Amino acid sequence: MSSVTMDQLVALAKHRGFIFPGSEIYGGLANTWDYGPLGVELKNNIKRAWWKKFIQESPYNVGLDAAILMNPQAWVASGHVGNFNDPMIDCKQCKVRHRADKLIENALNAKGIEMIVDGLSFADMEKLIAEHKIVCPDCGALDYTEIRQFNLMFKTFQGVTESGANVVYMRPETAQGIFVNFKNVQRTMRKKLPFGIGQIGKSFRNEITPGNFTFRTREFEQMELEFFCKPGEDMQWFEYWRAYCRDWLLALGIKEDSIRLRDHSDDELSHYSNATTDIEYKFPFGWGELWGIADRTDYDLKQHMTHSGEDFNYIEQETNERYIPYCIEPSLGADRVTLAFLIDAYEEQQLEGDDSRTVLHLHPALAPYKAAIFPLSKKLSDGAHQVFADLAKHYLVDYDEAGSIGKRYRRHDEIGTPFCITYDFESETDGQVTVRDRDTMEQTRMPISELKAFLESKIQF
Amino acid sequence: MSSVTMDQLVALAKHRGFIFPGSEIYGGLANTWDYGPLGVELKNNIKRAWWKKFIQESPYNVGLDAAILMNPQAWVASGHVGNFNDPMIDCKQCKVRHRADKLIENALNAKGIEMIVDGLSFADMEKLIAEHKIVCPDCGALDYTEIRQFNLMFKTFQGVTESGANVVYMRPETAQGIFVNFKNVQRTMRKKLPFGIGQIGKSFRNEITPGNFTFRTREFEQMELEFFCKPGEDMQWFEYWRAYCRDWLLALGIKEDSIRLRDHSDDELSHYSNATTDIEYKFPFGWGELWGIADRTDYDLKQHMTHSGEDFNYIEQETNERYIPYCIEPSLGADRVTLAFLIDAYEEQQLEGDDSRTVLHLHPALAPYKAAIFPLSKKLSDGAHQVFADLAKHYLVDYDEAGSIGKRYRRHDEIGTPFCITYDFESETDGQVTVRDRDTMEQTRMPISELKAFLESKIQF
Repeated sequence: MSSVTMDQLVALAKHRGFIFPGSEIYGGLANTWDYGPLGVELKNNIKRAWWKKFIQESPYNVGLDAAILMNPQAWVASGHVGNFNDPMIDCKQCKVRHRADKLIENALNAKGIEMIVDGLSFADMEKLIAEHKIVCPDCGALDYTEIRQFNLMFKTFQGVTESGANVVYMRPETAQGIFVNFKNVQRTMRKKLPFGIGQIGKSFRNEITPGNFTFRTREFEQMELEFFCKPGEDMQWFEYWRAYCRDWLLALGIKEDSIRLRDHSDDELSHYSNATTDIEYKFPFGWGELWGIADRTDYDLKQHMTHSGEDFNYIEQETNERYIPYCIEPSLGADRVTLAFLIDAYEEQQLEGDDSRTVLHLHPALAPYKAAIFPLSKKLSDGAHQVFADLAKHYLVDYDEAGSIGKRYRRHDEIGTPFCITYDFESETDGQVTVRDRDTMEQTRMPISELKAFLESKIQF
Repeated sequence: MSSVTMDQLVALAKHRGFIFPGSEIYGGLANTWDYGPLGVELKNNIKRAWWKKFIQESPYNVGLDAAILMNPQAWVASGHVGNFNDPMIDCKQCKVRHRADKLIENALNAKGIEMIVDGLSFADMEKLIAEHKIVCPDCGALDYTEIRQFNLMFKTFQGVTESGANVVYMRPETAQGIFVNFKNVQRTMRKKLPFGIGQIGKSFRNEITPGNFTFRTREFEQMELEFFCKPGEDMQWFEYWRAYCRDWLLALGIKEDSIRLRDHSDDELSHYSNATTDIEYKFPFGWGELWGIADRTDYDLKQHMTHSGEDFNYIEQETNERYIPYCIEPSLGADRVTLAFLIDAYEEQQLEGDDSRTVLHLHPALAPYKAAIFPLSKKLSDGAHQVFADLAKHYLVDYDEAGSIGKRYRRHDEIGTPFCITYDFESETDGQVTVRDRDTMEQTRMPISELKAFLESKIQF
């Protein structure tokens, strides 16, 4: 298991071009982050890997890309206008605002008590604060306001007047864009149940206390699938997708003991959910949710039926049976899983002698550069550039001619480049290059003409 | 040249799963649109094609993915807080609000007068309205308010109080996320001039009058490159990127006479720009901007230097020369170019006899499905499914077993699938299939084992 600290990871991410603080030259903006040249490649590769397995290879699913701005009625129907609130509490002494449930959970965790506070009544939360004398982590006082509701949707005004009639929300999840398009997709793609609709896109939640690097940010990206099936077959599909999601993580190199599947207890389950499992990752700051897989029954389609008047009944051609489909939702945070892949890949390795290296063991499908081309001497740049240009038509590869070959290996180990290709004087005559494996550090001589197929075989998963 | 009307295109887009009205079941939301299962594939293919040529294959450029929410000071520096306004005018009779410059341009265009009104003073615009008796297109009255400024940035509130101190904007362009990261990228990627930073992402502009389908929407996606070079070499790079952009469109199948390059006149040029060219596309509603290519000099970096105190000087190692880089910006609208590709590909073709077909001649790199697999009979589904599953590991392909082969051809012609692969009874024994070309309608017998390489060769560009 990786034993990287968050500080080490944040430093590597910043110095090697993965993730920069957002708007850094202006002192940042709360907990926003910008993906640098390597970060955007890693995250894009992760998004493509999700799309490949959940859309492209799946015989059931199709994709969608709905707008971030939706008719506000959609958020009334989904319950977000009424219920998408966090419990907020202020310290009267230092005026710092806290999310009450997290304040309590963190304090109890520090005492070794594991408890899920989300879902308790405000009165029960206030009781816990008093009982355990949970002080303000910023100033140490035990002097709070009452707990109040705070709606997490960002709102803005569309059109030229800031009147209530023009309020629109920045979507807090991609899922509702799928539900409102259920019939459009089913009809135009002539889909029969079971089938799913997947989507990748930005969502926004006005979190009271964002934090833990890219784990909890107000702007974030989701990869959501809504999988529709016949009522009664929902638990079987729930199991199917739960296993499918876990397999996806493992196939891309996440270690088995870095994750756990946590089933929600009856207390914790939403009233409409038949079953929910969180796939959690062991972050340096503790277990955190990566993927929520929920059997949402027919709740969402029913809500939209009621509010829109649209009929979401599905008619089974063979039997003429008529019903509202049930829905299984595996919902994954793209930023969280990117963070998990980085952490899981990180190793500080002791080598022979007094040598050491930092290496990211990213799966080749996810690594930003698939390979780096090193001319042994600047005299060889024509031939080496040709190798670069030929591979660049298919993959993102780097061309690196600065410093010794050993330094170049270390530089690429640290950013996870799986293969370093050295073009030397012999390459000019024998058409072969030396391919060095990031993980084993073994070197193999290989014809240039075989490089493309070699890389292609390595990025399969 | 395609002679499709917007009505025909909107109908095809909706009925074949390319583009649906946003939030349709709630009566929509202004001019928002959702990309359906085929639309998201087309648009993703276009974004990948841009990334391939502008980032992956370019020896100069790297990518970035900056947050949509930025520190508001960035928008003060960029000039958006002060100057990002449209001239707004209200009809006093029917209360409809118009963008004054567009109102005038449209009215003059209808009279055969081509004139660019953007940039004129409000007094000059009001004079034009009076002179040409430009009435309200909604009610026919000539009775307007004065022209006023309207800032196009969407604003929202971050954190839990809606005070001025918490105002943040939804970015109106991706470019500023690049400028603020200039040093982060240059340092971490050890880049020397010239080099570029490219980004794809959503932007938001509170347009007074969005319209023309996905041509002008409040939420839209950009593909922007900021290319930094030495002052004095800027015009040479401006020419380079202008040609590069045009070539990209042509390589992906846009017809030469569908586009024109329009150089901005001195009047029209921004005060800081040395040169600007718009690549315009001949939409059914007239010529419209697809791609703006501008030499922005050192304006943006200088603005951010002044407002942030960060030093954006670049020191040339070889000569010790010190200067603020100049910047060439090719900025492309992803939604607009998607619309252009759809329009350009559309053809209603008369065939022999009384037959006809609608066909989208999309470049195979852009087509949603690279191929469709047709079992000749349902008895052949095992073998045909195997062909599907093998190809689906590499490409999005469809499996279609409904109706006659002829009907299946027509269905896939209409969504631009370049190759239809029929698996018949002979395939079971000879391992060959019939591959039918969308454009020529010619059929070729081909071994199943060669399909992957065949498709790969066709999607190269």
